[in-house]
Amino acid sequence: MKRTVFYVSDRTGITAEMLGQSLMTQFDGLSFERRTVPFVDTPEKAQQVIDAIAQAAREDGVRPIVFSTLIDEGIRQHIRGAEALVLDFFEIFIAPLEAELATASSHAVGKSHSTGDNKDYNQRISAINFTLSHDDGVTHKGLDEAEIILVGVSRSGKTPTSIYLAMQFGIRAANYPLIPEDLEQQRLPAALVPWRKKLWGLSIRPERLHQIRSERRPDSRYASLSNCRHEIQAAEAVMRTQGIPFLDSTNTSIEEIATTILHQCGLVRHLY
Amino acid sequence: MKRTVFYVSDRTGITAEMLGQSLMTQFDGLSFERRTVPFVDTPEKAQQVIDAIAQAAREDGVRPIVFSTLIDEGIRQHIRGAEALVLDFFEIFIAPLEAELATASSHAVGKSHSTGDNKDYNQRISAINFTLSHDDGVTHKGLDEAEIILVGVSRSGKTPTSIYLAMQFGIRAANYPLIPEDLEQQRLPAALVPWRKKLWGLSIRPERLHQIRSERRPDSRYASLSNCRHEIQAAEAVMRTQGIPFLDSTNTSIEEIATTILHQCGLVRHLY
Repeated sequence: MKRTVFYVSDRTGITAEMLGQSLMTQFDGLSFERRTVPFVDTPEKAQQVIDAIAQAAREDGVRPIVFSTLIDEGIRQHIRGAEALVLDFFEIFIAPLEAELATASSHAVGKSHSTGDNKDYNQRISAINFTLSHDDGVTHKGLDEAEIILVGVSRSGKTPTSIYLAMQFGIRAANYPLIPEDLEQQRLPAALVPWRKKLWGLSIRPERLHQIRSERRPDSRYASLSNCRHEIQAAEAVMRTQGIPFLDSTNTSIEEIATTILHQCGLVRHLY
Repeated sequence: MKRTVFYVSDRTGITAEMLGQSLMTQFDGLSFERRTVPFVDTPEKAQQVIDAIAQAAREDGVRPIVFSTLIDEGIRQHIRGAEALVLDFFEIFIAPLEAELATASSHAVGKSHSTGDNKDYNQRISAINFTLSHDDGVTHKGLDEAEIILVGVSRSGKTPTSIYLAMQFGIRAANYPLIPEDLEQQRLPAALVPWRKKLWGLSIRPERLHQIRSERRPDSRYASLSNCRHEIQAAEAVMRTQGIPFLDSTNTSIEEIATTILHQCGLVRHLY
């Protein structure tokens, strides 16, 4: 039996999705079909959602679950009438917060993820631009402006982690590959020597690296398990000798790697 | 008066932050200091959080607010003893879900943002790689594999939006600039003609574009208000003539632009 889960919001639905996803992972054995309905900000759109919920209930033979973040009480009341278990996030949390803060909430829609603050927005964009122009060691120029420089062998997860640090936290994150020539000599790339304190390493298990590289260049020496094993061993030896902290990215999501680095490095995030 | 807000989690804290941020934006006039404490998964770490909360309470002269996502009931009980308003997300939502689903939750920590599923992870990474290698029109090759191609004048927000679509939704998003030569001729770049149905435009208000470009190249013709106005007018004219839908990225966050495109294009997201 399948259940439909609706994420309903008057804005993007991203918070509702995250809320729902975290909770649904606690019910492993069950099968869910997920549907996000963003920008539900009129009674007409609310009615469309109610109709879609009713249809899913008929098809599934069981009422859907709705995670919602609806600020407008009228729309929320409307959705509460749906044939579903409705868990609205504002409904549950706003009242205790108003009491605690002794302040009425503004009930203004669309305040989160807002670009109202140009300073935040500029910080974010400039971090993304910095990170893209310092991806994969393309340039040594400007590394003095990097807040962190990720190092590791090719395909150890440096690029997505750097981008995540820039996008979510506004951090200028460069990344630089450890290539066979340097690994043979057991040395850091020359361009990185002045910035040793800003380096953070990513490692990975050889089997997983072999798998990732094989998708890119099947049956190459580059992707072979023995070469992956050799490169990783050499990279970890360099990082240990140089006192560069590193973590294993195997089975770790981009979010987890980025958050771990943020906190362990004592980096200051520029965005919340 | 300042209040300290703690985001406490046994994992990254990202869900707690998003939850808290959405709620705090409803209390505009108040001043909050935010602190995230991730990976709180032992009684010792819980005790450190309790101590930090007590210290913030002393310093602020008012008890902090804690948004938490703690799966382990022991840790949660511990944190509930803190001198704070504690709003735990699992505590509030898990019970109604267990009742509705007639299933006990697994109480397993660290299930969200997980890479347990290599297929999801590979999809995400391959979308990011695709997007980076098709940023800013660097190549025409492989545009047949793009699920969407964003177009617009330089600095209209194409790159961050493309990256967000790839990172969050696993979508292969290319982007391609509309440059003065093509705008003069009121035509699409030749490489895009075969893919008109996959195009989506970003526009922006001239004043904002002028401001963004001025940070990059102050006092240039490129950044001048009159040139920005001219380029935007010409770009919108091309998009209208060619039937390319577009939206205004001014005062719109990356999340909002990406979500709007996702839903209006009927793109299928590959990741939740």
